[in-house]
Amino acid sequence: MAAFVTHVTLDHLDRYAQPSAEDLSGKTPSQKATVQARAKGYDGICLPLTNDKWKARWRELCLVPADGSPDAAALEQSAENWRSKPVFLRDEVTITRLDEADNSIILLSDWLELDSADAWVRHDAEIALRQELAYATYLNVHTAILPPPHNREHVASYARTINSVLSTVPYMQLSVRMPIYDPSLIHLDYGSPNPTSTGTSTKLVDDHPSIATWEMWDTIRCICDYHPRLTLALDLTPPLPSSLDVLRQWVAEPTRHLFLPASTFIPNAKGYPVLPKSTQSFIREIMKLQPVVIFSGTDSGTHSKGGDAAYSQYVRHLEKTSPAVKAMQTEGTVEHFAQGYQDYLQAPLQPLMDNLQSITYQTFEQDPIKYRQYEEAVFQALSNWPTPGRVTLCVAGAGRGPLVARSLSAIKRANRECFVYAVEKNPNAFVTLQERKQNEWGDKVDLLFGDMRTLHVPEQVDILVSELLGSFGDNELSPECLDGAMRFLKPDGISIPASYTAYLAPISSSKLYNEARATKDEKSMETPYVVMLQSIKILSGDGGGLSGKCGPQIQECWEFEHPRRDAVVNAQGLPVTNSHNTRAARLTFHIPHGGALHGLAGYFEAVLYGNVGLSIHPQRMDKISKDMLSWFPLFFPFKEPLYLPSKSELQVSLWRLTNERQVWYEWYAEAFLALPDGSPLVSVTSPPPQRASLLAPAQLSSIEASPFVDNVEIPETPRSGRPDHEIIFGGASMRLVKIGQTSLHNPGGRSSWIGL
Amino acid sequence: MAAFVTHVTLDHLDRYAQPSAEDLSGKTPSQKATVQARAKGYDGICLPLTNDKWKARWRELCLVPADGSPDAAALEQSAENWRSKPVFLRDEVTITRLDEADNSIILLSDWLELDSADAWVRHDAEIALRQELAYATYLNVHTAILPPPHNREHVASYARTINSVLSTVPYMQLSVRMPIYDPSLIHLDYGSPNPTSTGTSTKLVDDHPSIATWEMWDTIRCICDYHPRLTLALDLTPPLPSSLDVLRQWVAEPTRHLFLPASTFIPNAKGYPVLPKSTQSFIREIMKLQPVVIFSGTDSGTHSKGGDAAYSQYVRHLEKTSPAVKAMQTEGTVEHFAQGYQDYLQAPLQPLMDNLQSITYQTFEQDPIKYRQYEEAVFQALSNWPTPGRVTLCVAGAGRGPLVARSLSAIKRANRECFVYAVEKNPNAFVTLQERKQNEWGDKVDLLFGDMRTLHVPEQVDILVSELLGSFGDNELSPECLDGAMRFLKPDGISIPASYTAYLAPISSSKLYNEARATKDEKSMETPYVVMLQSIKILSGDGGGLSGKCGPQIQECWEFEHPRRDAVVNAQGLPVTNSHNTRAARLTFHIPHGGALHGLAGYFEAVLYGNVGLSIHPQRMDKISKDMLSWFPLFFPFKEPLYLPSKSELQVSLWRLTNERQVWYEWYAEAFLALPDGSPLVSVTSPPPQRASLLAPAQLSSIEASPFVDNVEIPETPRSGRPDHEIIFGGASMRLVKIGQTSLHNPGGRSSWIGL
Repeated sequence: MAAFVTHVTLDHLDRYAQPSAEDLSGKTPSQKATVQARAKGYDGICLPLTNDKWKARWRELCLVPADGSPDAAALEQSAENWRSKPVFLRDEVTITRLDEADNSIILLSDWLELDSADAWVRHDAEIALRQELAYATYLNVHTAILPPPHNREHVASYARTINSVLSTVPYMQLSVRMPIYDPSLIHLDYGSPNPTSTGTSTKLVDDHPSIATWEMWDTIRCICDYHPRLTLALDLTPPLPSSLDVLRQWVAEPTRHLFLPASTFIPNAKGYPVLPKSTQSFIREIMKLQPVVIFSGTDSGTHSKGGDAAYSQYVRHLEKTSPAVKAMQTEGTVEHFAQGYQDYLQAPLQPLMDNLQSITYQTFEQDPIKYRQYEEAVFQALSNWPTPGRVTLCVAGAGRGPLVARSLSAIKRANRECFVYAVEKNPNAFVTLQERKQNEWGDKVDLLFGDMRTLHVPEQVDILVSELLGSFGDNELSPECLDGAMRFLKPDGISIPASYTAYLAPISSSKLYNEARATKDEKSMETPYVVMLQSIKILSGDGGGLSGKCGPQIQECWEFEHPRRDAVVNAQGLPVTNSHNTRAARLTFHIPHGGALHGLAGYFEAVLYGNVGLSIHPQRMDKISKDMLSWFPLFFPFKEPLYLPSKSELQVSLWRLTNERQVWYEWYAEAFLALPDGSPLVSVTSPPPQRASLLAPAQLSSIEASPFVDNVEIPETPRSGRPDHEIIFGGASMRLVKIGQTSLHNPGGRSSWIGL
Repeated sequence: MAAFVTHVTLDHLDRYAQPSAEDLSGKTPSQKATVQARAKGYDGICLPLTNDKWKARWRELCLVPADGSPDAAALEQSAENWRSKPVFLRDEVTITRLDEADNSIILLSDWLELDSADAWVRHDAEIALRQELAYATYLNVHTAILPPPHNREHVASYARTINSVLSTVPYMQLSVRMPIYDPSLIHLDYGSPNPTSTGTSTKLVDDHPSIATWEMWDTIRCICDYHPRLTLALDLTPPLPSSLDVLRQWVAEPTRHLFLPASTFIPNAKGYPVLPKSTQSFIREIMKLQPVVIFSGTDSGTHSKGGDAAYSQYVRHLEKTSPAVKAMQTEGTVEHFAQGYQDYLQAPLQPLMDNLQSITYQTFEQDPIKYRQYEEAVFQALSNWPTPGRVTLCVAGAGRGPLVARSLSAIKRANRECFVYAVEKNPNAFVTLQERKQNEWGDKVDLLFGDMRTLHVPEQVDILVSELLGSFGDNELSPECLDGAMRFLKPDGISIPASYTAYLAPISSSKLYNEARATKDEKSMETPYVVMLQSIKILSGDGGGLSGKCGPQIQECWEFEHPRRDAVVNAQGLPVTNSHNTRAARLTFHIPHGGALHGLAGYFEAVLYGNVGLSIHPQRMDKISKDMLSWFPLFFPFKEPLYLPSKSELQVSLWRLTNERQVWYEWYAEAFLALPDGSPLVSVTSPPPQRASLLAPAQLSSIEASPFVDNVEIPETPRSGRPDHEIIFGGASMRLVKIGQTSLHNPGGRSSWIGL
């Protein structure tokens, strides 16, 4: 983490002790402050670009005086002159030199109301913002903190302005300051169509109760189209939400700065400043994003112990004790192994179509856990083998031989007579296999070169061992390959793995959304990626939701079992069609807290044999195969984010499809909200109103003779209470209302696994 | 309209009378049916592609028998063989020849359950659908009616299949048969995550209550990405919704076919078949889309009078009496004038940047109403002129001179001494003006060549007449041009127009959505278009909505008034900046019935002078300037449709922005639903909980000495009832929840009016 300290004003620098031996004479106030801050362990300072003189001039020019001032016309003339040629006076800005901006974070005037209810205030605030940004650009400022939004009613105007200025500052990072309140405690005022009822033209920032939630941020970044230079400066001044799950959404956003004023800290027993528990948890969690922490008021003596430096020392302590940071620093963990690969999108392997490189095999052979599990599975299968005598085993897809070696170890441990066949279709890896047979395995192993779906194997075997699994289980075509290998497994034989299950969860991640669309390739949003997920939030929660029909946070999609005993096969023992490997899942997720859906995280869990398994299911991996490194999750991106309000329900459809040559996934989602059902609940069986028969002869007298004349309109039985068909949702007084959907992704399998 | 008749079966053709003298011997049943249908005034026949033999074979192959039949394995083998190589037997299809498919509409097997709860039934129904479409393609069928969707729970699977087959049939129109029910009477069952509770694998179409609403259609066409060959066949068999507003949504969709069975008709007093009033209204409305009407059961003797032909004769009568069709056929109406321009997107004129062609002037000079209104306005202004003697008038932007001529007529009628200046910057039109001065106007008119914003005019005038208005009022830069002309209007002078107002309404139109994105130009979805709106529905309704804060159906955006008296001008009399011509509108619309938002319709209304005006506001145009032809509405497209549920609220933001060179609009929308407010209503003023001060010394005893140790966590005052800030929405027990938003459109003004 980087630590910065805020100087709201630089006027009184000299009253502080100067711990630095460096000569400060000749330095500007901001340079002095920087020297002092560094001496205290900070990386730099955070300071406002302008001062109260500028604020006073802007207010005089741009806010209409309440009374009909006689100077109104002259002021308006001055204002128009300013609007046409905005310029600062020297004493309105805090810095003038390039080296003053170096390593500083610049606060733009936080009193600029870009979301004022008054259109003129918004207009003139925008001009002032452009003026400040132009000056900051002149000074080569790298990071500017924007004034916070205040007014939900006009946040679209705030956002439109930010989007507009982003294109005028070609390199600067713009960070939106968002005070984090507990959204469950705040009701946003969506305003009235009549602006006069919500505020006068002279209302300024400090008159407003500052409200800020993720919803405001979401609107801003959506209007700015997820601009990569638009980041977040979370202001932790207000009391935080107590639910860590609500706070987690900020991990899925481009959070680059944290404001931590000394007033947020509370004293511990000794009087040292510490943070409340919920803030601690949040800081530990967000530390994996390596934010810049901006302290303020550290020299104001708020806490009796520790001095200025205690605040940043304490937060550095939290960083060191962050489980995420610790995991990254511990050898043997996935987090450590994945350093540099967090949120980095990789196309999944196509081992059936491509012949892997030796280096790829080597990477995956490094996984100590996976092969330990395989050896244990083979060992248990052999140990439980019911009949005495020779057992035959085939490794289908032997690669460079790790499963052959582990099988031989298991055979030795189990003390069984067992012959091993090793099948491999990669001609290059087959050279390695020959070498290992000659040097290590001898005649305990027979090598067979060819595709397991067509190769002739001398005898049917008892145990078939394969490692064809992808991040989503079936996504590297394990089902299709093993279908082809069933020919040489005895009818009562064992497959290791015995089964695998795919799991899905809806996630939010502005990082992954931007990464997936950054390639500008049309297919880039239609491809599932392998990725070590970091800047994400799983949007779903456990519990049934309002409809009572939602499943758990992470849900099972489908399962494949081997051997498959009911397949229809042809004379060669191969399936007639691949129909039996198509799958469709329709999952309903409860979304407790509002968020933007950017995609689906896919996981798998496999049963190798008995209770020996492999899992990357986030809630179960540590129990089943802790510290296994071979698989990162799969990420199914959505082209457009889908907005999900709190307490909504998400229906996800995922299909595994196939044709003669390919296998692919298509995916789609719809969002729903439960609304109170206004209409009376009526049974389904009420008959449709009888219409023709209601035509009583007495009513026909006034009818003319034209064949086109209307029938007499008999008032029908009121429809509202007597629908022809009414299907009651859940039997309760709520009904689900659709509120949005995504596109269908990857239709026709533009992104697919080829090689059937 | 085109009329077709359905033959559910062709078995009994011979029992019908054969009114044709043509020799039917040697013709196939479908050829005979076509001859007979034409003799009865139909354009062709609509017939199923397959018969009951096919249905029986498919069911035997694909539906698992309820009991554990001993033939199961053999059947499954047959099914797999069929799946691998689907083929019809001759007696399973109704037609075999190219000329049988000519002019026929083909019904695909309507019992195919593409949305079955059973994944295998869906899978095999898809194979059957592909088989039928492949055969239809072989026979060059141009239009195929798809089986209707039935199951809301699996409509995504239905839609995925349709999207997939659309790419396999390169020319055929596929029409989704949708039975139209009153959505207010139907609650869709969104199903349960457990498929076994919703149906068994043998459930077929006819066991379901057919439910169909626009929501199902919307999901289907969204998943098919608004495919241009995907159309709608509305089945009017069920009783229709009584609200025409609900039905109007189908006008905004690609409705190509209407199913009208004889059973939908009711007898009038004479026994002739007529339609219920609501169906009549709907048919009259939808006739402007020129649908194909497909009759059935017309020969079943349902009605005592009129015979077979009465049904189509009656519907042709409705077509003739359709107000929309009548207006198109009446000379002098906008609808007649606009023939061929309905839903055709045109880029708005840029008369300031471009010099218009003579033919363009001529088109607009044809408008009898607009110039009558201008003459009347000048006449009234002159008649009311308070001081006697010479009046001076300037036509700013004279073009080829129509306003000069009309001003001269008004001057003559008012019997005033009045001198006319005609200002024009188009050098080409200025030649025409010179000719007209020489031939018609003489020295009553002085011609001045140049831009009205910079030109020297010999004297300040009393009346300034201009026709710079666009479809949205200010969109052709009338405010900016007239700002420049104010220099030569006397301080108490009159501007004609005196003011103009822009209006906005949210609309749905899949036609316009597809037209706007058809150009594939990145800018095409960021440009407002001039378009004669036809296949649209205005989504908003009058009334305040649940929040009570919504405005009327069509809402005022902003207004411009001339002369503008408070502008700050420089020494040349020109405005210092264009700030005063920026505008921002934030409008809240009530959406009574669900729909897909595709854009905003823009209209204008102008006051020329007194009570003389111009209007294209749909609700007021007929009162103010009936039959005026010069302006079609403006259409602001949205890049992605925004789904709006019934009773939602739409907040639209529109900005008129400007820089030194350009003027442009940006637009954006957010959708909300009112939800019951679960949390207690609490006042805004409760103080934040005191935290530090709650640390009682007695509780410090067990604390360790590390500066990083936590403080003792004192249970805080429960937060749920004591928020720091709570802003009550409306004071009621409902609150608005955001459910979605559009992108910001045209940021930075890529599409703009240039020439400032």
